Amino acid sequence: MSKKIKLGILGGGGDSLIGILHRIAANMFDKYEIVGGVFNPNFDDNMAFAKTLGLDSSRIYKDYQTLISEECKLDSSERMQAISVLTPNFLHYPMAKQLLENDFHVICEKPLTTTYEESLDLKRLKEEKNAVFGVTHTYTGYPMVRQMTKMISDGAIGNIQKVDAQYLQGWLNPVIHEKDKRSSTWRLDPEKSGSSCCLGDIGTHAFNMVELVTGMKVNKLLADLNTLYEDNPMDVDANVLIQFSNNAKGTIRSSQIATGEENNLRINVYGSKGALKWEQENPNYLYHLSDDNPLQVLKPGHSYNSNISLDGTKLPPGHPEGIFDAMGNIYKGVARAINGEPFDKAEFPPIEDGVRGMDFIEKALESNSKGNIWVELNK
Amino acid sequence: MSKKIKLGILGGGGDSLIGILHRIAANMFDKYEIVGGVFNPNFDDNMAFAKTLGLDSSRIYKDYQTLISEECKLDSSERMQAISVLTPNFLHYPMAKQLLENDFHVICEKPLTTTYEESLDLKRLKEEKNAVFGVTHTYTGYPMVRQMTKMISDGAIGNIQKVDAQYLQGWLNPVIHEKDKRSSTWRLDPEKSGSSCCLGDIGTHAFNMVELVTGMKVNKLLADLNTLYEDNPMDVDANVLIQFSNNAKGTIRSSQIATGEENNLRINVYGSKGALKWEQENPNYLYHLSDDNPLQVLKPGHSYNSNISLDGTKLPPGHPEGIFDAMGNIYKGVARAINGEPFDKAEFPPIEDGVRGMDFIEKALESNSKGNIWVELNK
Amino acid sequence: MSKKIKLGILGGGGDSLIGILHRIAANMFDKYEIVGGVFNPNFDDNMAFAKTLGLDSSRIYKDYQTLISEECKLDSSERMQAISVLTPNFLHYPMAKQLLENDFHVICEKPLTTTYEESLDLKRLKEEKNAVFGVTHTYTGYPMVRQMTKMISDGAIGNIQKVDAQYLQGWLNPVIHEKDKRSSTWRLDPEKSGSSCCLGDIGTHAFNMVELVTGMKVNKLLADLNTLYEDNPMDVDANVLIQFSNNAKGTIRSSQIATGEENNLRINVYGSKGALKWEQENPNYLYHLSDDNPLQVLKPGHSYNSNISLDGTKLPPGHPEGIFDAMGNIYKGVARAINGEPFDKAEFPPIEDGVRGMDFIEKALESNSKGNIWVELNK
Amino acid sequence: MSKKIKLGILGGGGDSLIGILHRIAANMFDKYEIVGGVFNPNFDDNMAFAKTLGLDSSRIYKDYQTLISEECKLDSSERMQAISVLTPNFLHYPMAKQLLENDFHVICEKPLTTTYEESLDLKRLKEEKNAVFGVTHTYTGYPMVRQMTKMISDGAIGNIQKVDAQYLQGWLNPVIHEKDKRSSTWRLDPEKSGSSCCLGDIGTHAFNMVELVTGMKVNKLLADLNTLYEDNPMDVDANVLIQFSNNAKGTIRSSQIATGEENNLRINVYGSKGALKWEQENPNYLYHLSDDNPLQVLKPGHSYNSNISLDGTKLPPGHPEGIFDAMGNIYKGVARAINGEPFDKAEFPPIEDGVRGMDFIEKALESNSKGNIWVELNK
Repeated sequence: MSKKIKLGILGGGGDSLIGILHRIAANMFDKYEIVGGVFNPNFDDNMAFAKTLGLDSSRIYKDYQTLISEECKLDSSERMQAISVLTPNFLHYPMAKQLLENDFHVICEKPLTTTYEESLDLKRLKEEKNAVFGVTHTYTGYPMVRQMTKMISDGAIGNIQKVDAQYLQGWLNPVIHEKDKRSSTWRLDPEKSGSSCCLGDIGTHAFNMVELVTGMKVNKLLADLNTLYEDNPMDVDANVLIQFSNNAKGTIRSSQIATGEENNLRINVYGSKGALKWEQENPNYLYHLSDDNPLQVLKPGHSYNSNISLDGTKLPPGHPEGIFDAMGNIYKGVARAINGEPFDKAEFPPIEDGVRGMDFIEKALESNSKGNIWVELNK
Repeated sequence: MSKKIKLGILGGGGDSLIGILHRIAANMFDKYEIVGGVFNPNFDDNMAFAKTLGLDSSRIYKDYQTLISEECKLDSSERMQAISVLTPNFLHYPMAKQLLENDFHVICEKPLTTTYEESLDLKRLKEEKNAVFGVTHTYTGYPMVRQMTKMISDGAIGNIQKVDAQYLQGWLNPVIHEKDKRSSTWRLDPEKSGSSCCLGDIGTHAFNMVELVTGMKVNKLLADLNTLYEDNPMDVDANVLIQFSNNAKGTIRSSQIATGEENNLRINVYGSKGALKWEQENPNYLYHLSDDNPLQVLKPGHSYNSNISLDGTKLPPGHPEGIFDAMGNIYKGVARAINGEPFDKAEFPPIEDGVRGMDFIEKALESNSKGNIWVELNK
Repeated sequence: MSKKIKLGILGGGGDSLIGILHRIAANMFDKYEIVGGVFNPNFDDNMAFAKTLGLDSSRIYKDYQTLISEECKLDSSERMQAISVLTPNFLHYPMAKQLLENDFHVICEKPLTTTYEESLDLKRLKEEKNAVFGVTHTYTGYPMVRQMTKMISDGAIGNIQKVDAQYLQGWLNPVIHEKDKRSSTWRLDPEKSGSSCCLGDIGTHAFNMVELVTGMKVNKLLADLNTLYEDNPMDVDANVLIQFSNNAKGTIRSSQIATGEENNLRINVYGSKGALKWEQENPNYLYHLSDDNPLQVLKPGHSYNSNISLDGTKLPPGHPEGIFDAMGNIYKGVARAINGEPFDKAEFPPIEDGVRGMDFIEKALESNSKGNIWVELNK
Repeated sequence: MSKKIKLGILGGGGDSLIGILHRIAANMFDKYEIVGGVFNPNFDDNMAFAKTLGLDSSRIYKDYQTLISEECKLDSSERMQAISVLTPNFLHYPMAKQLLENDFHVICEKPLTTTYEESLDLKRLKEEKNAVFGVTHTYTGYPMVRQMTKMISDGAIGNIQKVDAQYLQGWLNPVIHEKDKRSSTWRLDPEKSGSSCCLGDIGTHAFNMVELVTGMKVNKLLADLNTLYEDNPMDVDANVLIQFSNNAKGTIRSSQIATGEENNLRINVYGSKGALKWEQENPNYLYHLSDDNPLQVLKPGHSYNSNISLDGTKLPPGHPEGIFDAMGNIYKGVARAINGEPFDKAEFPPIEDGVRGMDFIEKALESNSKGNIWVELNK
């Protein structure tokens, strides 16, 4: 039997969104088996949560140190091979460091560490151990981001001359204007969140995307941050000018006080032969502009896409990737019904809907074959 | 330990898209465990495919009859509780019938059966057995479809006076114009695909959506089908006029020769107080129109949504549901790296990206604190 | 001196929107000079309105019969050459008939007449007189409608196999549900508005567009109209199935009770090689779909457009045609200032804005040349 | 008779787009009468062009000095009251100066002058003379820009905390990469175009919009310009950081090498209570965001708009302002027909279209009244 990779998870318990995201992703291609982890610093909560996942309690540990020492005792065929690190930022470094030292592969949330020095340290260790280490800049996984990257490296837009990137959110707006709220939000507390709020949380995503899709390194930058209130020590808005070695210039604008914005990440790259534009909130559209031709809109799954883009597409064209979630919701509703839990009738289409569908088809065929007359459906 | 529901699957082996979709959905909320099934009519292919899923071979069966008889011998705590039926249309009925007779819950693809009579039979059996039976009209699982349904039943748009629905695809266009191709496509063969092509495959989706979101039954219909060529026995385009008991009228337009269209399913419902519009290719937007107010655009995850809509949302506002797929793609790339398989460097962000991110943050803070000057990033 | 065409106008006085539209259009290319007309059935109102247009009172007449007889007495170099007929529908026929009989060219609003017979009569007369006769289906004047028409006739989408057209409005919704209102609205009164409300007013636009852009004639139709209330004699919603001689089918859906819709006229034409889609509310975009290529979006003014499209474009690409209106608004504000009438400071940018702009440019150049430092603008 | 304002024009002859724009705008509301001017520095061309406008040659002058001296000799009831200055940038100052000194009102294109000092001089003179002076920042005339301005000043989005503005064009891309072309383009020649290309031409529009809609002054700025090639002395791309006195920050990004962009002017203003977003290429949509409410999309002409916005709307909701242009194109086609010039049949709908429309209406009513049967249209 083709073995699945044995995966452990640190963090992401309870309602944690990042936890849900990583578990669904791990299950998506039948390549991983989640075997245990430390989901929560409180051991009771940890165990209770693991139960909801249907996990065996024997590999739920009280802390990551215990996880490492216990897993290392297991036979290599049983031992966790990879660990996902989903804990608060300041824990990324100590956890990833010990995991690498003990020969685990690591999947780690961003920002990688709290300082540049720590991140260099992890990089050295990773190379020494020849481990696999993935940083989950999730947005880079979209098929059309992959397509954009490939097209630029293939020269589709010529030499890059301008980059305009943004990541605009508004979620801090209801927080920032009240002194009580802003002083009690962990994202605005340097102790918990590191030296930066907006740049660290989302500016890095835009920066990563800029270097990924252009294939170029940002040479230097000039930043103007805004804390909005004097008693707030953390940036909540940041406009950054950037320059590349080839003379191209650009901006990376990020904000968490762009009131009403959700996850408005966009990147426009302009070259001597054309331009490519992409936005995260409508991720299935890649816009290809050029001097005097019609705008071209590329979508996932079509044969005109590159292999790396097609590899990231699971369905035929026109199905938004989100259709998995739609189907997932239906399965969830059915599970509730099977488990005898309360459920809303809107959660999944019952057999009556299937019956109606058959009546619809038969009556439509009848109407047509009789010369387009009105036919009544069954009650 | 909270037990997962034991799920079996009929059909969906190999590259089958519907198979991928159901497996991902089943894994999404940690509620199901896929334990076996019959993925393929050829037993060798069946076993080989099951291996790629990491499934134990003991519960991979040669046909659905064997699956039923063998599973029934197992202890109820081990036995499959629910079976997903993903086989070609004509097999839905015999499979679902025997499954229900043997006390399995059923999740079945649409169209439910090949005739209305068969579907009634399944319904009677389902009621007799008190089984759970879900028909996977996938699109109904979108959070904003749920919101639309709830708003209409809450009276947000008053009495419904007009419904305009469509499901337009173009995939038959490259097939239909060549005699060889159109005579060898199974969808256009009544033996394999039943009495209808376009109506059965996608018209039913639109019809189901119409009755779901309006909460009303279509009273009568008048249909005009097009086969485009005389030697083609199957509808490839269908315009259907509909009437409801309350005097509302509308259309359901479906096509598979709408050249260049992908899965352009849309539904507009107009009432005496307002209107709601939704389209599948951009499923996170619900448009609420009214007489002389600004257009309102609702999106998933916001507190203004109903509980049933929020229950179907896994992430905060602004993350398109497709982000799961983006993350899934990254996990797939990491798995390839761990398994020593070839992979493209664009498949997941390596540790170097995390390092760059830290440098970006530190340099941006330095630039800002020194009065917005240019600072060079490390090479 | 190149002479402008002398134009008279019947109807369109006061706040009449159609009057404004025709006058602006007539003035747009320096080709017409409006010399007089009958703007209003009440002579005092007529004269007062003509004054506001700055017209000489000598050619403002009490009725169209007088206009015809008096104008015919003038020397041919002075006489009105063309007359625009903007009156209520039932007057189109008698006016156009006498105008043609007296050798005027005619520009007439739609619907052309109140019966098919009358329209045939006008056509015979027009041919006999060899007059120019334009019917103002305004939407056909958009550059991208012209482009769509040309591309289809050039074979860009192959043989047409499906047409889907709609014209959805919602303005009758606040009227139709109250008995008093619906019985007192002239559009719903057959005496004033002819035999049809929705079809006559907007269905004809969609129908005209269908035949224009396809270059084909509709062969037969099947219509389902809705009056919504039994005491309302007029259609307010109409779904029409259509068939062409070449076996293509389609729909024309029009409504005035599509609550919240404004002027949602759309036309999709699907052919064997591709499809073209256009919508009136965003008239500068023409969508070109095909089997497995990126969607192409054409916009006005580019060299890839046909001559007939470019002839209808007045500005370089990217200026929505509405920019004329923006500039027109500024001129209106300046006129108020010059005439000493009250005006809002937002009506036109004052000289101070020009001064600020110069300061902005100089300071930006200074900041850049000094190494990207902050520079203060003048107060 | 209500007198129209007598308007003279300097510049804008031949195919000049700015000339067409100003003339159409001047004619739009029956408020101005264009009586003469200097359209072209070459007197023969000037006269020939004036003829095509149907203007009397007596008030076509050889230069602006002559225009001023001759017009001043006329009786005040005949004399030009206002002059539109559409000449190249360096001529704005001397022309506007002498016009003001001689008591003309002035409508002047931007940038106002070539230096800040000159602009101050004009401002002083304008105040001394109590003249009306409008600078044609055309975009400010859009109804939804007016609405945005009013809503912000009414407090709809609270205190402004972030502004993000851009004006992106790509038209210089086909020019900039070839040495011959870039050295022979007048926009890139400081002698002809002043000290700045991109900032002067379009950056000022974005800057003007920023100060207009926010109602605040930009306090200081930091600019990073790009010339792309060392032998090019002029900015073709400019990223400008801005700060307001209230602690709000933002960017103004302008470019003429954003390949493929047309006139992508956008402005986003974020405040403590909400945000407003507008973009020039789709000028009829104003987006109103707030913390946890549905996005609202405002459109022109609705009663929820302010008076100043409604004053700038000429048609009912849903008619894009560009419809005037559509109608204008039809009138142009009719003029060609009347004048016996060659024309394309697509230029205006002929009487046959009116006849078809009547047949369509009658047949649809017949189909409906006979129980929704197929009815053939006349050939």
